[in-house]
Amino acid sequence: MPDVTIAVDTNGADLGPAEVAAGAAIAAAQGVRIILFGPADAIGAVPDGVRVVNAPVSIAKDPDPARAARSTPDASIVLAAQAVAAGEADALVSGGSTGAALAAGLFNIKRGRGIYRPALAIPVPIPGHPVTLLDVGASAEARPEHLVQFAFMGAALATTVLGVERPRVGLLSNGTEATRGTPAVLEAHAALTRRAAVGDLEFVGNVEGSDVTSGAADVIVTDGFTGNVALKLMEGVSQVLLGAVKDAALSSARAKAGGLLLKPALGALRDDLDPETPGGAYLLGLRRLGVVPHGRFTRYGFSQAILLAARGVTGDVVGTTHAALEAAGALKQAPRPSSDGASSVSSS
Amino acid sequence: MPDVTIAVDTNGADLGPAEVAAGAAIAAAQGVRIILFGPADAIGAVPDGVRVVNAPVSIAKDPDPARAARSTPDASIVLAAQAVAAGEADALVSGGSTGAALAAGLFNIKRGRGIYRPALAIPVPIPGHPVTLLDVGASAEARPEHLVQFAFMGAALATTVLGVERPRVGLLSNGTEATRGTPAVLEAHAALTRRAAVGDLEFVGNVEGSDVTSGAADVIVTDGFTGNVALKLMEGVSQVLLGAVKDAALSSARAKAGGLLLKPALGALRDDLDPETPGGAYLLGLRRLGVVPHGRFTRYGFSQAILLAARGVTGDVVGTTHAALEAAGALKQAPRPSSDGASSVSSS
Repeated sequence: MPDVTIAVDTNGADLGPAEVAAGAAIAAAQGVRIILFGPADAIGAVPDGVRVVNAPVSIAKDPDPARAARSTPDASIVLAAQAVAAGEADALVSGGSTGAALAAGLFNIKRGRGIYRPALAIPVPIPGHPVTLLDVGASAEARPEHLVQFAFMGAALATTVLGVERPRVGLLSNGTEATRGTPAVLEAHAALTRRAAVGDLEFVGNVEGSDVTSGAADVIVTDGFTGNVALKLMEGVSQVLLGAVKDAALSSARAKAGGLLLKPALGALRDDLDPETPGGAYLLGLRRLGVVPHGRFTRYGFSQAILLAARGVTGDVVGTTHAALEAAGALKQAPRPSSDGASSVSSS
Repeated sequence: MPDVTIAVDTNGADLGPAEVAAGAAIAAAQGVRIILFGPADAIGAVPDGVRVVNAPVSIAKDPDPARAARSTPDASIVLAAQAVAAGEADALVSGGSTGAALAAGLFNIKRGRGIYRPALAIPVPIPGHPVTLLDVGASAEARPEHLVQFAFMGAALATTVLGVERPRVGLLSNGTEATRGTPAVLEAHAALTRRAAVGDLEFVGNVEGSDVTSGAADVIVTDGFTGNVALKLMEGVSQVLLGAVKDAALSSARAKAGGLLLKPALGALRDDLDPETPGGAYLLGLRRLGVVPHGRFTRYGFSQAILLAARGVTGDVVGTTHAALEAAGALKQAPRPSSDGASSVSSS
């Protein structure tokens, strides 16, 4: 991957800055240039292709990340975001705090032109048919026009990164019928149906929770509250089920023998489902790309996050997404004093 | 189970009225008296303890169940609800349509005194620590006072039906911090914290999606949109994972041998996770009890639904729930012209 530089905050990871730096070393070995922001003494020695900016101040655990990002100019995530904003790096990778990455990104990299709100989009590794789910937690609530933008953002991401040519987009709801959902979902459903009618995107209508794994859609759109609950629930259910399979394989001598024979095949499945493999969520809607891994990732997950960011830069996820929104007329209109669009120009 | 009569609608089941009747026969063999409502010719012969009321009209597939329940007095679910309201039966079991059961229940059995809204509560069979999740789909949206009532309703259910003495109640959110969630969740969190401070209930605060399976709470409260997505997502993930385990067990000769040895142990796990085993969701908040199985259940699931309803009647779920809400002062106040409680007395 030539000429891609990723700014990485090392603060916020459960295993500490050195673990993030170890992940950076893995990604650097694949040709990505990296700037690490964090406590230089904790980061230690780094290989070629990795540069360290000593930034020991962390706001990763601050309960009010928006305030902290504004009032802490020397915080590592703020300095990393500023490096991206200044063009010294092409994308931002956080050390694990979604709130701090979002706030530092909004204040420094800035929202893309015509974007209502950033969204966190994650390619979920469902065996057989990966699905891009968004928003998985950038904002707790979403208005209908946000959900419509998320649909286009998710579709552009699925095309650019996963190579899905005309992604089928579904709207997550409590039933497949067009009459099911919250008022915001009903309104978004109507708007997306109108978009689909003129060929702007492939809208398959409402999808249910069970459709996240059924392959009914390539992209599933929801608000950040529901998306975050869904993502973490999937991780919890996977973990508990694989644990139960393991327990079953220890439940008798016969089962134990079977478990031993089955171990390699089940190990491959566990690797497929490992939440570290996708590398985390894309932070879409800023002027440059962000990637938010989970704070509990090991070096493997952080290396995957950096490589995910680099692939997103190479594939021009930001430019492609913006072009798709523009082509569909789904960008927020600039404020016009004579229009009645007071709500359409409000920030947030 | 002496002296319990359950009114069962046979319309709405994917496999038809005869499958529901076959489930009723299984439950009747355990001593439950049953009145079946549906097309007598399709139901056919029934064993002792089961009575058939010929009611061929179905509103189970009506897109507007509220309107249909009002305007179709001879619909099977309406007649079944009326039998419960008249005291001919102690509880209602639907044939699979949640909307029709909810509408027929509201119009005929009526909301319990002081209840804002009914909720669907389901005991989720998480291996190791079952969790009661509500609302899983009675209403798409929930105001803070609804969520507070759901907390008390869920706790009373967990005590009465699952025997959990002082259930730990969690509020589902996009983060465990008290600052995370939608405005309704933040407000409900504050109200439940105040309740917990005076000992009204055991509130463990916000829980995340991963906590549904972690054992962090015995009861998890959420709105019907999120709860429905969560429930169906769990079913989807379980299905896809057990399928992937099966595929892994066919991936090589070695794995095949292992799979054969492991089969009995995994079969037991699959039975544990079978969504038919819990029998469906309790419909709480009416003057009498309802149970809503899934329309795609087989006779086994319907028999479980009828037995779940019978256990709920024997355990006096409705009375216990109401007493818990009353003791905690969590019932809606009757309208008082001089008070400022305009919003607190609005219906729904």
